[in-house]
Amino acid sequence: MENIVVPADSHVDHGYTANKEALLKRLSRIEGQVRGVSRMVDEEKYCIDILTQISAINAALHKVSLGLVEEHVSHCVVNAAAQSLETGDRSYVDDKVSEVTTAIGRLLR
Amino acid sequence: MENIVVPADSHVDHGYTANKEALLKRLSRIEGQVRGVSRMVDEEKYCIDILTQISAINAALHKVSLGLVEEHVSHCVVNAAAQSLETGDRSYVDDKVSEVTTAIGRLLR
Amino acid sequence: MENIVVPADSHVDHGYTANKEALLKRLSRIEGQVRGVSRMVDEEKYCIDILTQISAINAALHKVSLGLVEEHVSHCVVNAAAQSLETGDRSYVDDKVSEVTTAIGRLLR
Amino acid sequence: MENIVVPADSHVDHGYTANKEALLKRLSRIEGQVRGVSRMVDEEKYCIDILTQISAINAALHKVSLGLVEEHVSHCVVNAAAQSLETGDRSYVDDKVSEVTTAIGRLLR
Repeated sequence: MENIVVPADSHVDHGYTANKEALLKRLSRIEGQVRGVSRMVDEEKYCIDILTQISAINAALHKVSLGLVEEHVSHCVVNAAAQSLETGDRSYVDDKVSEVTTAIGRLLR
Repeated sequence: MENIVVPADSHVDHGYTANKEALLKRLSRIEGQVRGVSRMVDEEKYCIDILTQISAINAALHKVSLGLVEEHVSHCVVNAAAQSLETGDRSYVDDKVSEVTTAIGRLLR
Repeated sequence: MENIVVPADSHVDHGYTANKEALLKRLSRIEGQVRGVSRMVDEEKYCIDILTQISAINAALHKVSLGLVEEHVSHCVVNAAAQSLETGDRSYVDDKVSEVTTAIGRLLR
Repeated sequence: MENIVVPADSHVDHGYTANKEALLKRLSRIEGQVRGVSRMVDEEKYCIDILTQISAINAALHKVSLGLVEEHVSHCVVNAAAQSLETGDRSYVDDKVSEVTTAIGRLLR
């Protein structure tokens, strides 16, 4: 199967690179939202309205994180699984699984 | 007591205005962190490292939110309590309490 | 105003006591949900279905927390504000505000 | 490699079954914590102390969720990857990845 490959250099393709433009657009929108919050603080807007904006930023960041997790499992973890199958050494995939679990754990906090 | 007053225009002082400079500095640091994530994506850094940076942004935003909640309760809710005490009309403080609870609920999600 | 009082013993009324029965019913439902998850694990149900149940428990616990925060601000913080107004000593309300903020911060994590 | 297999019935082994006893013990401890919160409410303990206990339950549930996610990726997703490699049909693993991502998304909220 062509789509699951053991890359020579696993850093060449991170999964998210296919959606790089969309991801950068999202991040630039989030940057604009943070700048918007600064403007609200500077203009001394109502605290509750600022908190609402921050909740929107949290939600946008969660979406970005989740997209990265999905691409990561879909590419890096799956490639490591292929590598483990090929070599008979389970440590490739185990390392990747425990790494992404730690990252998800940090997002849950 | 001087510090709990019913302001003529409750929008003049939001509590956070005293720490406005510190708050703006924090937000500009968060803006820089988001820009840093964009740079990482652009340079195709490792997904897990990007997720770690996003977790740091989440934590920084939580701190800002929490500071705003504290200032809001300390000023707007407490002023509304004073107004309720003065007028004998509990609705001033009840409205503020339910408003801030809704905002906290959005942060919890 | 009758509803904002400085209680002789602030532990006599915590705000949530008015809704004690409803709160206990909610908690017993959550206890049942946790037991349901144990049953699913024991019967070796599909992991994703178990995770869905845990998300439902998280949501139910968030609702309970939020209700407690609302009652706490509405009663304990507002009573402390009244006490501060009466005595001219802002520390009563400041202590309560910083205490509830710390509790909210723990919920946000 | 023995450890990555395409199970005849993927519901026979969910990954977490190896740690079933430990998982059940954790869940029974969480059930006890919820019962403890009910007792606190019944005895009209201080709201902030109840919120602290709920935060501890949240943390314990997060740990359980994270463990299930790790086992799920390590077993179900990796088995689906093996199945995709064997059959040349990427949909096995893609379906599992999108399923676990949705579950993680629900935990993040």
